[in-house]
Amino acid sequence: MPGARACQWLVYFDSRTRYNGGMKKKPLRAVFIGFGNVAQRMAAMLAEERGNYPGLVGLDLLAVAVFTRGHGALVDANGIGLEKVLMQFRASGAFPAPPMAVRQALETLDYDVLVELSTLNIAERGEPAVAHVRAALERGRHVVTANKGPAAFAYRELSGLSQKNGMRFLFESAVMDGAPVFSLGPAIAGCRVTGISGILNTTTNFVISRLEAGEGMEAAVATAQRLGFAEADPSLDLEGWDAAAKTAILANYYLDAGIDPLQVERRGISGLNPDAAAKVAATGRRLKLICRAEIEKGKVRAKVGPEEIAADDFFAAVSGKGAALRLETDMMGPLWIVQENPGLSDTAAGVLQDLLRVSASR
Amino acid sequence: MPGARACQWLVYFDSRTRYNGGMKKKPLRAVFIGFGNVAQRMAAMLAEERGNYPGLVGLDLLAVAVFTRGHGALVDANGIGLEKVLMQFRASGAFPAPPMAVRQALETLDYDVLVELSTLNIAERGEPAVAHVRAALERGRHVVTANKGPAAFAYRELSGLSQKNGMRFLFESAVMDGAPVFSLGPAIAGCRVTGISGILNTTTNFVISRLEAGEGMEAAVATAQRLGFAEADPSLDLEGWDAAAKTAILANYYLDAGIDPLQVERRGISGLNPDAAAKVAATGRRLKLICRAEIEKGKVRAKVGPEEIAADDFFAAVSGKGAALRLETDMMGPLWIVQENPGLSDTAAGVLQDLLRVSASR
Repeated sequence: MPGARACQWLVYFDSRTRYNGGMKKKPLRAVFIGFGNVAQRMAAMLAEERGNYPGLVGLDLLAVAVFTRGHGALVDANGIGLEKVLMQFRASGAFPAPPMAVRQALETLDYDVLVELSTLNIAERGEPAVAHVRAALERGRHVVTANKGPAAFAYRELSGLSQKNGMRFLFESAVMDGAPVFSLGPAIAGCRVTGISGILNTTTNFVISRLEAGEGMEAAVATAQRLGFAEADPSLDLEGWDAAAKTAILANYYLDAGIDPLQVERRGISGLNPDAAAKVAATGRRLKLICRAEIEKGKVRAKVGPEEIAADDFFAAVSGKGAALRLETDMMGPLWIVQENPGLSDTAAGVLQDLLRVSASR
Repeated sequence: MPGARACQWLVYFDSRTRYNGGMKKKPLRAVFIGFGNVAQRMAAMLAEERGNYPGLVGLDLLAVAVFTRGHGALVDANGIGLEKVLMQFRASGAFPAPPMAVRQALETLDYDVLVELSTLNIAERGEPAVAHVRAALERGRHVVTANKGPAAFAYRELSGLSQKNGMRFLFESAVMDGAPVFSLGPAIAGCRVTGISGILNTTTNFVISRLEAGEGMEAAVATAQRLGFAEADPSLDLEGWDAAAKTAILANYYLDAGIDPLQVERRGISGLNPDAAAKVAATGRRLKLICRAEIEKGKVRAKVGPEEIAADDFFAAVSGKGAALRLETDMMGPLWIVQENPGLSDTAAGVLQDLLRVSASR
C-alpha cells in the first residue's frame, strides 16, 4: 500500500540495527533531569500524540525518576509511563519534594538511560550537567542530552568514557535542534570533515535582520523577545556564548578539537552599530553571526562573530528562525544541512531520535 | 592530537557497526559493470590517492571482473587490485575481448558485491542494469549502483529481494552524487518523510539561469555543453527525464510510491520561452525545474516541471552546479540537504561510501 512509512529506508541500515524490529524489547528505563518545555513536548509526543508518529512504535520508555529545578521530583523504582508523569505535573505544576539527590539517584537507581534536559551553564563550565553525565556513563548507562554543556566542556572525556563502557553518549538536539547535525557523520561514511561553518543562533540572526531593516538594538531585542525569538535574559545569545558553545561541540565532534566555549574566539552582536548593519544591507550584502571551525597548521581554530555575506551566498538566504551548517570534507564538495523553521517539537524530536538510537543499540 | 579524523563520530554508530574496526577483514571481491569516468575516478581515489582519504582505510577491494560497454572486459578469478586495473586500462584505453557474458559472470564468479556503474536507459526501462542487479541479489550478493535505473524502475522488487536475502542494495550516488540523500533516512531515526521537493538536475538549472540572463535556448545549451554542464545529447536532461528518474527513486524510497519515471508528471524546459524566463527574473523571482513528490488522498503524486520561485525561497539560492533536496517530515519542520558544487569526485565518493557500508555490514 503506497503512503509514507518510516521503515522504507531500512535498506540503508545494517541489517542488525533495525529500529522497528519485530521483537518486543524490555522498556527503556530513564532518569530525567529537567522537565521544562522540551521534556514536556517530548513526553506529549511519546504519550498523548504517539498515534501521529509511527516511527516511535519501537520506543517503549518508563521514567524511573524525574528531577526538576525547583519543582520537586518524582522517583518510582517500578517506572512510570510518561502519560502519568505529564498528568501529575500538569495537575499541580510541580512534583513532590525530592526523596533523594540527583547524584544519589544516578548512582543507585535501576535505569538504562539518563535523559539530561537541563540548560547550559557557561559560568559553571557546564556543571552540574557534566558531572551527572559522567556519573551515568561511569555506571554503564547511556546518556541522551539536549544540553550543550557536556559536549561543549567535556567531549573528549565523556565520549572516551562512553566508548570504554560500550554506552551511547548522544546530543543531537544540542545544535540545530533535531536536524541530523551529528548523525550526518556516519551518514557520510568514510568522509573526513575538514572545516565547519554555520548560522546556529536564532536570536542573533533575527536581531541582526531587524537592525538591517533600520531598527535600533534595544527595539530589535524587544521585538525578538515579544515574538519568542529571545529569552528574558538574551545576553547568552547576544554575546555569542550560545553560538560559541555550539561551535565548540561541532569542533570537538568533527575535528577532534578538544576545546571548550571559552577557547572559541568570540564576538557577539551587542556592540553592533545598527547604522553600519543597515548600510551593509543597502549594498545587497547581509550581516550574519557566523560560526567557524577550521584547521590551521595542524591546530583547530574556532571562532564566532558577525561577518558580511555576499548576496548570492547560501548563508544570505538563512533568515528568520532558520539555521544552516556547512561541512567541508576531504572526499566531497561542501555539503549543507539547513533547517527552515525549527520549534520546540524539533528539539523534542532530536531527543526522541537519540532515544531510538539507544533503544536500537541494546 | 587535534586535527580532522574520520572516526571521531563513532559515538553515533551502533557499537557493532564501526567502519574502521580493528579486525582485518577479507577483501571485498567486486564485479564492476561500467568503467567510465566515475569508475576510474573511484579507482584512482581508492588506489593512487588512497593516502589522502584516511576514512577509506577499512576498505579493501579486489576486482574479480570489470565489464565495459565496447571496451572489452577483465576477468580474473583471483581478483586484481584497482591500481592494476587502472594501469591496464590507461595503457591501451581498453581491456581484452570479454571471455564471458556479464550475466554469466554474475551467476558463476566468486564475488561479494556488484558495483553497477552503467548509465540510465529510459527507453529500455532501466535494462539491462535492472536484470544485472536482480541476478546479483538473487545470488545473495550485495549491490552498489550509481545508475538511476534499478531504483527508479524496480525499487520495490529489488529492495524486497535484498531484504529477503540479507543483502544491501545501495544507490547513494544516483541522486545528488555522494550527498547523503538516502543515508539521511536512518540519520533521522523514527521520522516519517511526508513530502519531497528538490532541484536535482544541474543541466536544466544552468540552462534556465542563462535564459534568465537573456540568452536564447540554443545558445544556452551550447554554453552548458562547452562548460561541461550538459551532455552531447542533452535531451534526457532538457526533457526532464533525469529529474523524473531521480524523483521516482526518492518517492519510492521515502514514500513507498512504487512508481517509475514514466509515472512522474513531467514537463521539461526545452519548450520554455526565453523571454518569459527573462521576464520572471526581472521581477526578482527565479525559474527553477522543481521535482516534487507528495501524498494526496493516500496516493503519491510525483511531478517535475519549471516553477516560479520567490526570491527569498531557499531554492532561489541554488545556482550553478548546486543541488538541493527538501524533506518534510512528521516530527520536524522541513529539512534541507544542499550540495554546493559537486563533480565527478562526489559521485565516486558516494559509491565509496556505499562500499564502506557493505564492508561494515559483513
